[in-house]
Amino acid sequence: MGRIVVEVMPKPEILDPQGKAVAGALPRLGLDGFVAVRQGKRFELEVEGDVDDAALERARRAAEMLLSNPVIEDVVRVAAADDVRSA
Amino acid sequence: MGRIVVEVMPKPEILDPQGKAVAGALPRLGLDGFVAVRQGKRFELEVEGDVDDAALERARRAAEMLLSNPVIEDVVRVAAADDVRSA
Repeated sequence: MGRIVVEVMPKPEILDPQGKAVAGALPRLGLDGFVAVRQGKRFELEVEGDVDDAALERARRAAEMLLSNPVIEDVVRVAAADDVRSA
Repeated sequence: MGRIVVEVMPKPEILDPQGKAVAGALPRLGLDGFVAVRQGKRFELEVEGDVDDAALERARRAAEMLLSNPVIEDVVRVAAADDVRSA
């Protein structure tokens, strides 16, 4: 069973109040040096079988049709997950 | 000016109703072959200057203190963004 990661971010020209709230909170926690924050979404799609080109194409269509709103968001990544579950 | 990406996902044992809703909607859009979906968050932190070890350490602290809830979420990635703004 494979896994595909889809990442969606607000378009640069779109206001991002969640990101702004985070950016405002960081200095209050003593974390300086950050000038801006933007918040988007990350999806993990488990697919039947391996992650092949057909599965990636279905994931790209899912990203455009369902996982993002193309008026205000960009799909910034659709890729097989290399099990990067480590900070 | 550098950019750090922080990715946060719900822990595997935590219910994820948003992901479940997406997983239920995919077949209705004709997109088959997905067995599960989980939805998390992706942050882009703009830092003053380059992304060095100190900046990454501050981003890791931000991820643990503010960007994630360690009871229900895992920080799955803290890394310099290689400007991967392409699907």
